[in-house]
Amino acid sequence: SGPARGLRVYQTRRQTLAPRILRSRCSNRFGSAMNNPVPAPPASLPDDVQRALDEDVGSGDVTASLIPAGATARGRVIVREPAVVCGVPWFDAVFASLDGGIAVGWAIAAGDSVAADTIVCELAGPARAMLTGERAALNFLQTLSGTATTTRAYAAAVAGTACRVLDTRKTVPGLRDAQKYATSVGGAVNHRHGLWDAILIKENHLMAAGGIAPAVAAARRLHPDLRIEVEVENLAETQAALEACADILLLDNFTIEELREAVRLAEPSASVLEASGDITLETLPAVAATGVDFVSIGALTKHVRAIDYSMRFDIN
Amino acid sequence: SGPARGLRVYQTRRQTLAPRILRSRCSNRFGSAMNNPVPAPPASLPDDVQRALDEDVGSGDVTASLIPAGATARGRVIVREPAVVCGVPWFDAVFASLDGGIAVGWAIAAGDSVAADTIVCELAGPARAMLTGERAALNFLQTLSGTATTTRAYAAAVAGTACRVLDTRKTVPGLRDAQKYATSVGGAVNHRHGLWDAILIKENHLMAAGGIAPAVAAARRLHPDLRIEVEVENLAETQAALEACADILLLDNFTIEELREAVRLAEPSASVLEASGDITLETLPAVAATGVDFVSIGALTKHVRAIDYSMRFDIN
Repeated sequence: SGPARGLRVYQTRRQTLAPRILRSRCSNRFGSAMNNPVPAPPASLPDDVQRALDEDVGSGDVTASLIPAGATARGRVIVREPAVVCGVPWFDAVFASLDGGIAVGWAIAAGDSVAADTIVCELAGPARAMLTGERAALNFLQTLSGTATTTRAYAAAVAGTACRVLDTRKTVPGLRDAQKYATSVGGAVNHRHGLWDAILIKENHLMAAGGIAPAVAAARRLHPDLRIEVEVENLAETQAALEACADILLLDNFTIEELREAVRLAEPSASVLEASGDITLETLPAVAATGVDFVSIGALTKHVRAIDYSMRFDIN
Repeated sequence: SGPARGLRVYQTRRQTLAPRILRSRCSNRFGSAMNNPVPAPPASLPDDVQRALDEDVGSGDVTASLIPAGATARGRVIVREPAVVCGVPWFDAVFASLDGGIAVGWAIAAGDSVAADTIVCELAGPARAMLTGERAALNFLQTLSGTATTTRAYAAAVAGTACRVLDTRKTVPGLRDAQKYATSVGGAVNHRHGLWDAILIKENHLMAAGGIAPAVAAARRLHPDLRIEVEVENLAETQAALEACADILLLDNFTIEELREAVRLAEPSASVLEASGDITLETLPAVAATGVDFVSIGALTKHVRAIDYSMRFDIN
């Protein structure tokens, strides 16, 4: 299941990171900032659900009035294609928000990989509210399962290596927390959530600060508790960022040869290496094999390949 | 451009619909409920932008503090692949919300189809705020351009027929208004927004109401001003829905032969026909050629194929 899988991933990372940290003169803030891969639903969940109901139900479901007010129903949700099931807490909250009398029983655990035509859950309760909530609930399930399913494919492509997949800030507006939950369920490690929780020094910041060493020094002085990442574009910048004790180096659009050399340069350091730049499922195994610690993939969250679910009802 | 295109689409529809309405004994509420294809930004826009900034910027951009507070910058946004540009009002609002001193000049009109590597806009203003807004602004542009670009491909597949593409309620949670704006820019017609603005009678409602005729009659009595759509699964139900003067018939998973026969049955009526059910870009031309008025495509909004944009800065 998702949580257990996420936990294993993290423990593997710590084991890999530990020796490098021990023999380095630099301390590293990387682990502590990424140590929550067990997906608990984010604090955004109630707002996510309320917004989805506002936009879908609005002033009320005018068709539901054709159903007798006291009617009850049973329902079942079927996934129509192989998928990693994700979005269960949002699905549950949609129905709980509409009618406390709706019971949902899950046949699978969140994060499970299931085959096409699996019944994932059954519902029972007031018929009107079940019909009213159907689309909003399925939209969460189809969207977040899509992200988890895509992510698991990328995670599988690095299986057997010490490399892990990271998500990015290229997300669907308004859905970042939910999408980062889904990448975690899928087997990725969450990168920084937003602009406030880690430093990522890019080309423009470097130019303004006068280079890598002064930029990292200024960042450490201004934000001593935050992880500092530096985007580098060649091996000379890689060396400079390592000497500045950056917690992470973002190796942007490096060739495989350059990645190997960056790994060699970083070996005696505490710095963690992240490769990035149009890395696909096809090119990912070769990138992971260079020995980089992480590969960040915008495609996990900027695209959505929704999973096909349907809901069937029997009204009593 | 998008708005002009949308308007032309609608005018074509009215011309097609008019004769059928005139010779029918049924009135039709369809046109009036779908007569706003000129995309004005939805009322949700300020909330969309605030939410995106909350989740991306949060308590503040910790890296921006490396840029001198008084520095100014120029920026340009480049689209990296052929696309229908969409999301301009959200992009503008992100920067306006961060700093009123940022000016954005667009080189293209929203809804334009542009080639890869086109500069779509240029920005000038305070450097910190421009760097802080980059990702949130691009996330709107990449997401909504993705929806508009996908939609335009479907719209092109029905070009030259009287058939038009409809969107659905299978949307990314929280982004429905924006996505429906994007499908409109792409050349689709917006279907009902949510559960409150039109009646869609499905199998469960029919069972509860005792059949198509009593269901439509009850819906008309309860909601005399709303458009009434009935989902039908075969030609017998099609005939019954036509006799009940449903405004729209949703022909679910009909074969091409059945669609042709439904069009023949509907010819003397005021009812409008919508085909639905796993219709792809490949099968769409054949479906449109049957003479149905609309084809609804969940894939427009349930999937997102983000468009690749990048932003380049020169800091003064």
